[in-house]
Amino acid sequence: MKVFVFISSLFVFFVSFKPLAQTNTVKVNNEIELKSAIKNSQAGTKIVLANGIWKDVEIKFYGKGTKENPIILTAEEKGKVTIEGVSNLQLGGSYLEVNGLYFKNGYTPSKNVIQFKIDNDTIANHCKITQCVIEAFTQPDRDVSDHWIEFWGRHNEVSYCYITGKYNFGPTIMIKLEGNENIYNYHQIINNYFGPRPRKGGPHGETIQLGDSGTSMTPSHTLVANNLFDRCNGEIEIISSKSNFNEFRNNVFFESEGSLVLRHGNYAKIDGNIFIGNENSKFMGGIRVINTGHWITNNYFYKIKGEAFRSALAVMNGIPKSPLNRYNQVTDAVIAYNSFIDCKSPWQFSVGSNVSQKEVLPPSEIRSERPERVIVANNLIYNEIPDENPIVNYDKVDGVKFKNNVINHDYNSEVKPNGLKMESILLEKKSTNLFVLNENISNTYEGFDFETITNDLFGTNRTASGNSIGAIVYPVKNNILIDKTKYGTNWFSVENEILEPKTYKISSVSSLIKVIKKAKSGDVVILKKGVYHISSSIIINKTISIVSDETNKASLVFSSPKTAFEIHPKGNLTLKNVLLKGNSNQNAFTTLDKYMSKTYNLNIENTEISNFKSVLEVSKGSFADSITVSNTVIKDCENGFMLNKETNDGGDYNAEFLTITNSKFDNIQGVVLDYYRGGYDESTIGGNLNLNGNIFSNSGKLDGILIKNRGIVNVDISNNTFQNNPVKTIAVLWGEKGQKPVNNTINNSGSIEIVQNLALKLMY
Amino acid sequence: MKVFVFISSLFVFFVSFKPLAQTNTVKVNNEIELKSAIKNSQAGTKIVLANGIWKDVEIKFYGKGTKENPIILTAEEKGKVTIEGVSNLQLGGSYLEVNGLYFKNGYTPSKNVIQFKIDNDTIANHCKITQCVIEAFTQPDRDVSDHWIEFWGRHNEVSYCYITGKYNFGPTIMIKLEGNENIYNYHQIINNYFGPRPRKGGPHGETIQLGDSGTSMTPSHTLVANNLFDRCNGEIEIISSKSNFNEFRNNVFFESEGSLVLRHGNYAKIDGNIFIGNENSKFMGGIRVINTGHWITNNYFYKIKGEAFRSALAVMNGIPKSPLNRYNQVTDAVIAYNSFIDCKSPWQFSVGSNVSQKEVLPPSEIRSERPERVIVANNLIYNEIPDENPIVNYDKVDGVKFKNNVINHDYNSEVKPNGLKMESILLEKKSTNLFVLNENISNTYEGFDFETITNDLFGTNRTASGNSIGAIVYPVKNNILIDKTKYGTNWFSVENEILEPKTYKISSVSSLIKVIKKAKSGDVVILKKGVYHISSSIIINKTISIVSDETNKASLVFSSPKTAFEIHPKGNLTLKNVLLKGNSNQNAFTTLDKYMSKTYNLNIENTEISNFKSVLEVSKGSFADSITVSNTVIKDCENGFMLNKETNDGGDYNAEFLTITNSKFDNIQGVVLDYYRGGYDESTIGGNLNLNGNIFSNSGKLDGILIKNRGIVNVDISNNTFQNNPVKTIAVLWGEKGQKPVNNTINNSGSIEIVQNLALKLMY
Repeated sequence: MKVFVFISSLFVFFVSFKPLAQTNTVKVNNEIELKSAIKNSQAGTKIVLANGIWKDVEIKFYGKGTKENPIILTAEEKGKVTIEGVSNLQLGGSYLEVNGLYFKNGYTPSKNVIQFKIDNDTIANHCKITQCVIEAFTQPDRDVSDHWIEFWGRHNEVSYCYITGKYNFGPTIMIKLEGNENIYNYHQIINNYFGPRPRKGGPHGETIQLGDSGTSMTPSHTLVANNLFDRCNGEIEIISSKSNFNEFRNNVFFESEGSLVLRHGNYAKIDGNIFIGNENSKFMGGIRVINTGHWITNNYFYKIKGEAFRSALAVMNGIPKSPLNRYNQVTDAVIAYNSFIDCKSPWQFSVGSNVSQKEVLPPSEIRSERPERVIVANNLIYNEIPDENPIVNYDKVDGVKFKNNVINHDYNSEVKPNGLKMESILLEKKSTNLFVLNENISNTYEGFDFETITNDLFGTNRTASGNSIGAIVYPVKNNILIDKTKYGTNWFSVENEILEPKTYKISSVSSLIKVIKKAKSGDVVILKKGVYHISSSIIINKTISIVSDETNKASLVFSSPKTAFEIHPKGNLTLKNVLLKGNSNQNAFTTLDKYMSKTYNLNIENTEISNFKSVLEVSKGSFADSITVSNTVIKDCENGFMLNKETNDGGDYNAEFLTITNSKFDNIQGVVLDYYRGGYDESTIGGNLNLNGNIFSNSGKLDGILIKNRGIVNVDISNNTFQNNPVKTIAVLWGEKGQKPVNNTINNSGSIEIVQNLALKLMY
Repeated sequence: MKVFVFISSLFVFFVSFKPLAQTNTVKVNNEIELKSAIKNSQAGTKIVLANGIWKDVEIKFYGKGTKENPIILTAEEKGKVTIEGVSNLQLGGSYLEVNGLYFKNGYTPSKNVIQFKIDNDTIANHCKITQCVIEAFTQPDRDVSDHWIEFWGRHNEVSYCYITGKYNFGPTIMIKLEGNENIYNYHQIINNYFGPRPRKGGPHGETIQLGDSGTSMTPSHTLVANNLFDRCNGEIEIISSKSNFNEFRNNVFFESEGSLVLRHGNYAKIDGNIFIGNENSKFMGGIRVINTGHWITNNYFYKIKGEAFRSALAVMNGIPKSPLNRYNQVTDAVIAYNSFIDCKSPWQFSVGSNVSQKEVLPPSEIRSERPERVIVANNLIYNEIPDENPIVNYDKVDGVKFKNNVINHDYNSEVKPNGLKMESILLEKKSTNLFVLNENISNTYEGFDFETITNDLFGTNRTASGNSIGAIVYPVKNNILIDKTKYGTNWFSVENEILEPKTYKISSVSSLIKVIKKAKSGDVVILKKGVYHISSSIIINKTISIVSDETNKASLVFSSPKTAFEIHPKGNLTLKNVLLKGNSNQNAFTTLDKYMSKTYNLNIENTEISNFKSVLEVSKGSFADSITVSNTVIKDCENGFMLNKETNDGGDYNAEFLTITNSKFDNIQGVVLDYYRGGYDESTIGGNLNLNGNIFSNSGKLDGILIKNRGIVNVDISNNTFQNNPVKTIAVLWGEKGQKPVNNTINNSGSIEIVQNLALKLMY
């Protein structure tokens, strides 16, 4: 006894000798003072940026702190210090901490907003970015690629940050692994709030990318934990893991249009994450698996309705002896103790199998190697409304061992393994999105190393609770599935103030011009009936609605030289009940030629558009989230909607959605639309064209084709009438993508062709 | 103080409670008793095989021992228990030890002699093979592939064994990594003596292979340490590392014709190994580097004269985005503190660059990616006779950083970095093959993580000694470089008894036949002058010389149906000063049709061979180490030397060396030789044809070509005379391999062609 007492007091003795933090605070008011303060800093120095806007600053923050006494760069008052303009931050050294900075209204002049190295000789180790905000610090030109945070070195951290609104090319966060200094990095990306990232249209829109194929054989050991991904839509991969031994724990993917993708590299651990979709979206995914040795445990999937690449669990086919940057076979994966609640066909195997495309693809692109030595055990599938096909297979399923999985209803999948058994079980709704068993199903399978799966989704010890299949054991520890306030900073308000829209009633051209200029985003302009002769373009750079009376439509007659409406970044125009007329020399809608930094939208209802060159002309790099046209007449124009400038064949395209319904096109000389996406990239699955209930007549003469939709993945042409169009071809559909015309009426208008395998340019 | 005393006595207390070994010995006399003993074994059981030959036994050794009390399978007396015939051994369970067994005179009926699993549910962990011998336990048919020891599971060990004489296809030891049960294996291959492995002729002759390309992304962590590789010639890779995190420490590669190759996988450590070549051989290599993150430190290279793939240090070019089974780029390698003594061009970069072969190879085979982020520092190059080209580059060297390397003379390499400086240094010969500095060169470069290189080749602490470039710091700890008695078992004598050859003088056919049958290997048969009419084939299955007097040659006239001499495995025939005559219907020399399990040799001097069908006909799978013909006349035959049966185009061939000098070929209707190797395999660099000082006349009529040598890598055709041969082509040489005719005289005999890039079948 004496001994233990002595030892514990020794322990206390040592603990009390831990060096105390020695802070030396230096307040700086401008860049020169900041440089000097950094130069003179030593362990324990705290550099405080004075309140105000720090514009066009490139901060090189270097020094040698210690674990106990880091060098800190912080704000006088959080939120009152903003980094704006053409600015960035680089860190080099050890134990540096950046706390409470706010990047907004600007963009980086270099390849990164924050970079964990200054140069190859000054790399950051044990450095931290915390309590910071990066908000829409996006390049003026979407085509220009950057990373907002680029990791180098080892043991660096980004924590408790709020990061949102990256419109341009490039992953938001990138982990770099070239060079021995940057492997075994044990970086931590924890407790952050990743706010919405808009759809990018094509690849290079990840929220986090861990390495690239070139360094995919390196040991990274990055931890991504306790983050919220809130509508991170950028592209099909929210997280793209491309290195070894990374861990993804307890993150929430909330209504994000993509998946956590194990793209390259091996031996990832994906444990205790939550994936929330919704009833309507097929874009929200779960986990996609490529390569070897991954463990996917204790994850909870709710209302994930994505298919194939975006299914709740997508286990891919590989390419035999795959090139380094393509698809390795899935082997030795363990998928255990996950819950799939009200998901659609959550288990999909051999996703990406493309053996049928042998004629258009080289052998090095054919994904024919099925998953091998994969164990799927102790998982729970529950559907309120039975799902006929909980398992979808794109090839034979001969390398997957199913053990002790439970589903709550009978089903008719082609693959119906003994290891997925129907049991009548009841789930209890505990709170929003949280459904739990009201007793344990303890008949679990004990596979190799399964004893290492000690806890459930909420951290409850599985053995102590008698264990259960599924992600959550009974009794349930947590009452709430997601508490959004737990993520991000302790000072920045994520909720945007919503302004009450104003309404302006207008009867003259001059007041129309004036009002549109001064209106706040969201305001509505109501036009009195009459003819408005407008001689200059109207600039749309906010959310604005221009409407008139349904039966007494105002008429806007343009003589402006280039375009009627000039669409700027964040332009979001609704036109309703108006007549739009041009002089045949200008377009109705045109984006800026460049610097279309952010997405725009166009919504046209019950409107007539006539006598324009093109209805819509866009620039390369511009991107519309959605263009919606309904109950509208478009006539006497040279061309319709021209979304055809992303011709690099890199998987990019100019609009996510083009939806035209119940409208009429008459006397369009060229094509009524040209919507283009080029390049084989199985992982950009966008471009969405929906033509439903329209009438097309007397159009298409110039091109011999009416509708160009080459490379767009999702095309629905239904219930339209094509009458007297002097064309050979109405449109060419892509059979491999399931495109087929439905219930269209065609008179004297050529035909709709289907090509099974479209020959595109190889991107890799 | 009291506390420490108390704690240490507590420690002693715990230590003394370590469970004692509880042995329970069971002696078994036959397979039934053995099976029963295994079945009844428990921790601590020692099963003893009774002295004698255990023939045709397939032992499944299973059970659960403990660390303190393993289950042991051993021999009554080591060396007196032999496993023979069609036999093998499988282990499954934990803490099993096989001690002192001797495998000889047989082969395995399965794919392995010893396998560390019985089936996928009974895998071995913590099991050990120790003090065992496997001697020429080789398949009757060389074409049949097997592994002598196949590792599965984790923490298994092969130690203190002697393993030699594998002639057939397949690596001697193989580590398997498919399945999570078999990764992170930490196997140990330690303190073994790998005796000679004969040349195999083509690939699949490794002594140790760690994984394959399909599992090359798995963590293996196998340790290969303190082994002696004595003339392990099998193929170009003595060790082929194809998985991650393997370590190769303190091994000796003694006159072994190959290299330690980091073929696939990453992050190997090669530390403190010794590579000994000799003055004459260009086949003995060092370390060949592919992939990323390898550390090569403290190694000692002496008289390594290999080039390109077999150079002391070969850093390869990679294929951009390489397929999984081809060549990844070399990145992030560290090559530090090695010594290269009297090696020829020890540093070779971009080895395997084949950009010039674009016309015959697909892009996925072009090794154009140069090494990147490679550091070569603190190495020592010393040459007694200056080497003009210590550095050879097959491409630009722009990704290698040379720091603080020292060489003892000026040089003229194309690449002459500042980081390899001439200094006048003196090496002292300490003992055989051991040359050391007589003072330290302490101006070392300190790269990233270099502080982890704590010790030198002999384990001396570098810092304490003031450090030095090169593998060995001064003062030198060891006086002897290699002590062969340290390796392998403590009971088996590696040195073969050399018998004094007997000489038999013969004057009749009957005694010739009788003597050749009864002679011991190495004996000499002397024929008296005269004519010997021989009606049956003479079987050659040992080393035997048949000679007569140089000026009074005996004449052997054969009427045997198929062949004069029938060559069996291990046949090693010297014919000297004889006249050999056939009846034009049989061959002079023919191998067995199958079961040519072992290599043979043929040496013909000052002999005349006439009136045969072919001089030599061989079977597929047969392999001659060397065929040497000198001062010999060969005439009036249909064909000459037909080494052309390995036509699978898998890189194999029928003889390592074919050397014909100062001989005459006259009136050979077909080809004088047909020596074939097929398939692109940059790593089989064999087939050696040497034709020097010969006269070829009136031959080649049937084929229009005189010499067929397609695919043979090393061809030297010099100082020959070709006279009146009715052919278009004498031979086709392979320009890319540096083949060119030298000083030949050609009269009325067509020409020697050179093809720069030979189009061969792709093997991968």
